[in-house]
Amino acid sequence: MEYKRPSAARTWVEVPSDSDFPIQNLPFGIGQRSGELPKVCTAIGDYVADLSVLAEHGFFDDLLVPRPVFHQAVLNDFIALGKEKTRAVRTRIAQILDDDLEEWDASELRDFFLFPQTEVEMLLPLQIGDYTDFYSSLEHASNVGAMFRDPQNPLLPNWRHLPVAYHGRASSIVVSGTPIRRPQGQTLPEGQNLPVFGPTRMLDFEMETAFVIGKPTTPGERVSTEQAEEYLFGMVLFNDWSARDIQKWEYVPLGPFLSKNFASTISPWVVTLDALEPFRTAGPAQAPEVLPYLRVDGEKSYDIQLEAHLRTADGVEYLFCRTNFRHLYWNMCQQLAHHTINGCNIRVGDLCASGTISGITPDSFGSLLELTWNGSNPIQLPNGAKRTYLEDGDTVVFKGFAQKEGLRVGFGEARGTILTSF
Amino acid sequence: MEYKRPSAARTWVEVPSDSDFPIQNLPFGIGQRSGELPKVCTAIGDYVADLSVLAEHGFFDDLLVPRPVFHQAVLNDFIALGKEKTRAVRTRIAQILDDDLEEWDASELRDFFLFPQTEVEMLLPLQIGDYTDFYSSLEHASNVGAMFRDPQNPLLPNWRHLPVAYHGRASSIVVSGTPIRRPQGQTLPEGQNLPVFGPTRMLDFEMETAFVIGKPTTPGERVSTEQAEEYLFGMVLFNDWSARDIQKWEYVPLGPFLSKNFASTISPWVVTLDALEPFRTAGPAQAPEVLPYLRVDGEKSYDIQLEAHLRTADGVEYLFCRTNFRHLYWNMCQQLAHHTINGCNIRVGDLCASGTISGITPDSFGSLLELTWNGSNPIQLPNGAKRTYLEDGDTVVFKGFAQKEGLRVGFGEARGTILTSF
Repeated sequence: MEYKRPSAARTWVEVPSDSDFPIQNLPFGIGQRSGELPKVCTAIGDYVADLSVLAEHGFFDDLLVPRPVFHQAVLNDFIALGKEKTRAVRTRIAQILDDDLEEWDASELRDFFLFPQTEVEMLLPLQIGDYTDFYSSLEHASNVGAMFRDPQNPLLPNWRHLPVAYHGRASSIVVSGTPIRRPQGQTLPEGQNLPVFGPTRMLDFEMETAFVIGKPTTPGERVSTEQAEEYLFGMVLFNDWSARDIQKWEYVPLGPFLSKNFASTISPWVVTLDALEPFRTAGPAQAPEVLPYLRVDGEKSYDIQLEAHLRTADGVEYLFCRTNFRHLYWNMCQQLAHHTINGCNIRVGDLCASGTISGITPDSFGSLLELTWNGSNPIQLPNGAKRTYLEDGDTVVFKGFAQKEGLRVGFGEARGTILTSF
Repeated sequence: MEYKRPSAARTWVEVPSDSDFPIQNLPFGIGQRSGELPKVCTAIGDYVADLSVLAEHGFFDDLLVPRPVFHQAVLNDFIALGKEKTRAVRTRIAQILDDDLEEWDASELRDFFLFPQTEVEMLLPLQIGDYTDFYSSLEHASNVGAMFRDPQNPLLPNWRHLPVAYHGRASSIVVSGTPIRRPQGQTLPEGQNLPVFGPTRMLDFEMETAFVIGKPTTPGERVSTEQAEEYLFGMVLFNDWSARDIQKWEYVPLGPFLSKNFASTISPWVVTLDALEPFRTAGPAQAPEVLPYLRVDGEKSYDIQLEAHLRTADGVEYLFCRTNFRHLYWNMCQQLAHHTINGCNIRVGDLCASGTISGITPDSFGSLLELTWNGSNPIQLPNGAKRTYLEDGDTVVFKGFAQKEGLRVGFGEARGTILTSF
C-alpha cells in the first residue's frame, strides 16, 4: 500500500477535535444495529462505520480480502488474515474517508455504512481462547508488597527477573456497558479463624490495558522480543474487577480465583499498534539486567494516558486516578517472549492484560486498594460521601488516549456499573 | 427411553474381558480415519464406532438429534444437546450393539461404522473454553505443605474450607499420544540469588482426572451442589505436566504459570457420569463442617482406580503409582458449586481438573515430587536406572478404570513421551 495517511489528514466525516477516533485511529470492533446481524466495524468521530457494507460494494476486493470476513460476530477471522492484510484494509478505510482523495470516495454511500454511535450496540469483539493477566507495574507490585508484606522490601525476589503472570477466566470477560453483579464468596473476618459467606465488601477495579494476539504459534514455538510486535494486533482498556476480601482468603498458594473470575470489562474497540506508533516511547530502565531472552532494543512502550472515573448512582463524578501505560516496567514484547519461552502456544484473539498500572504519585495509583491504602485512607467525594471500595450503583469508567501535537488516538471507554448481589 | 441396558448385556461385537470399553461404557470421542473428516465416535471393545454413519442411516432420527451434530471435529455441539438427548443417543447405541435386541440391529453395517482402534486417530475431543485446576486431594496438599512449609501444620488455613483452584491454560491441552517438549525457563539454583535459564531439570507428571461441563450458565448464575451433576457431562484422565524448578521460582505471589502451561494431556474418550453410576461411592468425611453452599447429600464420589506407568526409551516398564479418585477430599459437585458461587459463568466443554490425586500410602502418591519426596528418595527402576524426575524419552501412561462384580468401565490411556528441549 503506497497511500500514507498524513497525520493532518482530513476526512469528509465531521470529527470533533477531542474525539478518540480521528482518521488516524480506525480501530476495529463488532457493532450491531437493531434488527441486524453483528458486523466488523471501525469508528470515525461519533460514527460507527459498517465495513461489511464497504466490502459488499467491493472496496476491499483488490486487497484479496474475502467479503464474508466482515460478516462475523467476532474479529478473530479478520485478525487471522494477518497484519499485511489488516493493515491494507485499515489503509483503504483511510482512503475511503479521506477528504482529499477521490479514487476511493464512498461519501455517497454514507447513509448505508455510517451510523451514529448511539444507534450501534458494540459487542465483545473477540472470541478469547485464553486470557493472561500480568503483574508488570513496579509501582503497583511495590504498593501491594508494602501493604501486605514488608514496606522496606516490598518486591518478591523473582519480580525484577521475570514478568509475573497468571491465567485468568476467559468466559467472564464482558464488553463495556455490561453491568457487574457484586460477587458473593468466602471471607475471613479480621481476627477470626472461621470464614463467613456473603457479598464482597471490598469490590475494587484495576486499571489495566490488554493486548490482543494477532498471530498464532504452534506448541513448542517461541516468540522472541524482536518478533513480538508482529504477534500483537492491538490493545484495549481492561478492568480487572477484584474482590479484595475474597482474594485475601483464597489466594494462597495458587493465586487469585473467585476474587477475579466473576467479570472483567474491556473496551469495545481494538486500537491497532499501527495507530499507536506515533506515541512509541521508552519504558523505565530495568535493573538488574534481564536474562538474554527478555532483552529488547529500542523503544517498546507507548505514551498512553489512562483515567479511571467514578460516577455514583446519585450523579457525583470523581476522578479516581490518572496514570500512563509508559510506567509499566515490563513491556508487551517482554511479556509475550516470556509467555512463550516454555513453548506455550498462543492463538488469535488471546488476551494478555498488563496488570494494574500505577504511577509514582498517589493520584496515579490504579486501584482502590492502593488509592485508599487498603481502606485506611477513604476517598472524600465532592458531595461529602466517602469511598473505600465500590458501592452498589457506582459506575467505573476507564478512558485511555494518546495525545501529541494535535493528534489524539483514543480507546473510548470501558465502563461497568455495580449491581446489588443476589 | 425404556430400554435399560442390563449390566450383563452382551454385544455382537467381540469385547475382550479386560476391555475398558464394554457395552456398559460407551464413551464419546472424536475419531478420524485416514483421508476422512473427524467424526463423533464411541468405543466398543477394540473398535471405534463412527456414529455419523449410524446417524446417516437414520438410527438417531426418532430421537430428534440432528445428523450434522455427528459430523463435527469436537463434541461441544453434541454435548450441548443436553443430557436428555445425549443419554438417549447412548441408550440407542447400546440397543444397536445389543446381541439380544433385533429392533435396532446394525450388525450388517459393521464394516461401515466399526473400525479397529488402530485405524482411527483419536483427536482432542473438546473445544475447551476455560480450564480450571483444583487442588482437592488432602494427601497431595499435605505432602506439598509438609515438604515446603511445615510438616506439623502442612495445610494452609483455607484448605478445609474451600476447594482451592486456579485457572490454567486451555490452548496447550493436548490429546493422549501428543509428544511433550521439555520446557525451558528460569530457575533459581540452590543457594544463589540470580536466576539461570535452561531446560527444566524437574519435569513431573500429576495424576489427575477432569470433568467436562455439559450445560452452560449465564453470568451471575450459580449451580448448587444438588444441581451440579446435571452440569457434569463426563470425565477424562488428565496429566498436568509440571516443571517443579520453574514453578518454585515463578509461583509467588500469583500461582503457577509457565511451569504448567506448556502442556496438559487428556485421554481421548469422555466417559459419561451415567457409565460411572454403578461405581458411585462416598468421599472422605469432611471436618470441620463446610459452609452451607458446599454441603452435599448422598454419595458424591466414584470408585475409580488410577495408575501412572513409566515406559523408558529402552523399554523398561515401571508402575509409578496406583491411586483412586475416591480419595479426593472435595467432590466434583462441591468444586462446581464453589466455582460458580461468585457468578462466574461456565460453558459447554470447559474442563475442571481435580488436582493431583494422592492416596495415603507412599505408592499411591500422584506425582514424582511426592514419590521421590522432592528428589530426596530416587526411584529405583528394574534395570538399575534411577528416576527423580522424568528424562527425555520417558513415556508416562495414565490408566483409569472402575471395576466391580465383573463390570469394568475404563478411560483408556492418557499418554505422553518427553522430547528433548530445543
